[in-house]
Amino acid sequence: MADNFNKTDVNELGEFGLIDRLTQEFVTENPSTHKGIGDDAAVLKMGEKALLVSTDMLIEGIHFDLMYTPLKHLGYKSVVVNLSDIYAMNGQPKQITLSIAISSKYTVEALEEFYEGVFLACKNYKVDLIGGDTTSSPKGMSISVTAIGEADLEKVVYRSGAKPGDILCATGNFGAAYLGLQILEREKQIYLSNPGIQPDLENQDYIVGRQLRPEAGRQTIGYFEKHGFRPTAMIDVSDGLTSDLFHICRQSGVGAYIEEGKVPIHPDTEKMALQFNMDPITAALNGGEDYELLFSIDPSDLEHVRYMPGVFIIGEITKADDGIKLHTTGGNIHDMQAQGWNHFKNNNPSKDN
Amino acid sequence: MADNFNKTDVNELGEFGLIDRLTQEFVTENPSTHKGIGDDAAVLKMGEKALLVSTDMLIEGIHFDLMYTPLKHLGYKSVVVNLSDIYAMNGQPKQITLSIAISSKYTVEALEEFYEGVFLACKNYKVDLIGGDTTSSPKGMSISVTAIGEADLEKVVYRSGAKPGDILCATGNFGAAYLGLQILEREKQIYLSNPGIQPDLENQDYIVGRQLRPEAGRQTIGYFEKHGFRPTAMIDVSDGLTSDLFHICRQSGVGAYIEEGKVPIHPDTEKMALQFNMDPITAALNGGEDYELLFSIDPSDLEHVRYMPGVFIIGEITKADDGIKLHTTGGNIHDMQAQGWNHFKNNNPSKDN
Repeated sequence: MADNFNKTDVNELGEFGLIDRLTQEFVTENPSTHKGIGDDAAVLKMGEKALLVSTDMLIEGIHFDLMYTPLKHLGYKSVVVNLSDIYAMNGQPKQITLSIAISSKYTVEALEEFYEGVFLACKNYKVDLIGGDTTSSPKGMSISVTAIGEADLEKVVYRSGAKPGDILCATGNFGAAYLGLQILEREKQIYLSNPGIQPDLENQDYIVGRQLRPEAGRQTIGYFEKHGFRPTAMIDVSDGLTSDLFHICRQSGVGAYIEEGKVPIHPDTEKMALQFNMDPITAALNGGEDYELLFSIDPSDLEHVRYMPGVFIIGEITKADDGIKLHTTGGNIHDMQAQGWNHFKNNNPSKDN
Repeated sequence: MADNFNKTDVNELGEFGLIDRLTQEFVTENPSTHKGIGDDAAVLKMGEKALLVSTDMLIEGIHFDLMYTPLKHLGYKSVVVNLSDIYAMNGQPKQITLSIAISSKYTVEALEEFYEGVFLACKNYKVDLIGGDTTSSPKGMSISVTAIGEADLEKVVYRSGAKPGDILCATGNFGAAYLGLQILEREKQIYLSNPGIQPDLENQDYIVGRQLRPEAGRQTIGYFEKHGFRPTAMIDVSDGLTSDLFHICRQSGVGAYIEEGKVPIHPDTEKMALQFNMDPITAALNGGEDYELLFSIDPSDLEHVRYMPGVFIIGEITKADDGIKLHTTGGNIHDMQAQGWNHFKNNNPSKDN
């Protein structure tokens, strides 16, 4: 009984608190380890070159639901979300390893469908599958991907380089993947209560596609290279625009503001948010899984981004004391709150063994 | 219903057949991808240097049982089994990433215990933990580790370099980890039928330790380096001595024989095998999880291995036509059968969802 005193529930810490606590005392020792835990990818030093390494785990019932996720899309997404982390370091992904554990309810044909998506992502992003592990699982599916990328060491962009006065930019648009998930969940519930009803996904291609089959920021990185400049800090938006801005601010020791009216939101996202009685900006700021790039640039590079296709200037980096603020279209200034995903809190303990 | 025609059960193929089938059409394209799927680790070319990458997934209920696996040992083993793959390429592991998915039944303190083992392995093998993912799981624990190592490109040893006349060598001893598992499973069953009985693990430290907390072949690699030679082919024995010899033979296009009397078996393994009514050589040849190194050397390097500590000459590489044979102590010659682990077959479908 006394054993249960001083025990900490993993829910209390959340993912980032947990990683911090578990790894706080770990010191890296090898000279080739240039940057360890704490950015989108680790950086290994190979002469003048940097090798970038990033890894992610996707668990059935937490990160995906096979009731509405085609296996081919799942394979594609498993790869892309990892490549996104390499691009976020201003690197080019080159290789991946992929491990999958599956229960024996899956047929070889189902696995082949999954790998079709994996191979398509590899082809589209010019990445090689170099290894992995295929094993069984008593229940459900677990996927683990490690992506390896390359960059010139001096061109690597970290979360920590933003400074007051830098301009805050974002690619693409936000909130679509989150609303795509809401639609899929809604149709699942309808189907579960009445299997005779066909899912109503008409005209939802765009936002459902953003959830099921995201793409990563290759073109953005190519543009930086072509125009000979690079961001001062960068992150890929997986947890949510606000949450990922908080990562940049914390690791750069700065504040920031975002102008509400400048946050790009797709018309379909806007329409669907209203259907769900949600303010579109809330979905855009907190939704997550956009896999867009959020970055800051030195003001002297402003001319480069002003005409950069699909890139929006959404705010500015400020001093740490100024906090992290939202300038609303109504003229108010609010403190932003990082919500992001907390898988531990989302997880229903009653499902547990 | 027609959907179920032509479906292939994953059980029918087994792990290796499955990987072969899934990846057979995949072609690598990046010039830095020197060797992809099919060896203990992938090889990336970085100038004159090789970067070695290996990954493994460990699933609760398949690869480990938390009823008798202390979390610290599990953390240690998760790292070591991956380092073993890097040593098997004649490389030095330098970094790992580690992802873990856990259900919320685990406390932060339990996770810290797991990471204690991870950090101890990192310290013992001088390896840096550079990244990973911590997420929740609806049920059970999944662990994925990717190990990264370095070697001179020309010194990398593949499974494919063995040639007839080469001498077949092995480090350490075989069968202990398998019998350790049998003891733990037996004590678990006794405990389940009568929780009042304490487990009887006395005098089983060695073989139980080989199962719960294996070590990898760092010293062997160091010896090769120090004495300026290298094997013609090498593999780490995870699937079982026979099964892993088959990998070398298949990939080198050769045959081989093992002399039964030369296979090193620890006295405790021998004793315990007899208690389980098992021929010790059967446990040694098919047990698996030994994490010893099996390698072939050119006869001109014989003087180097003759006095190599903990290394045994167990047979010879022959022509492919000669097959893969066991020369028994009784003077007979048998065809060897690769059994190895087939997790898919071991998995009980009734446990499935």
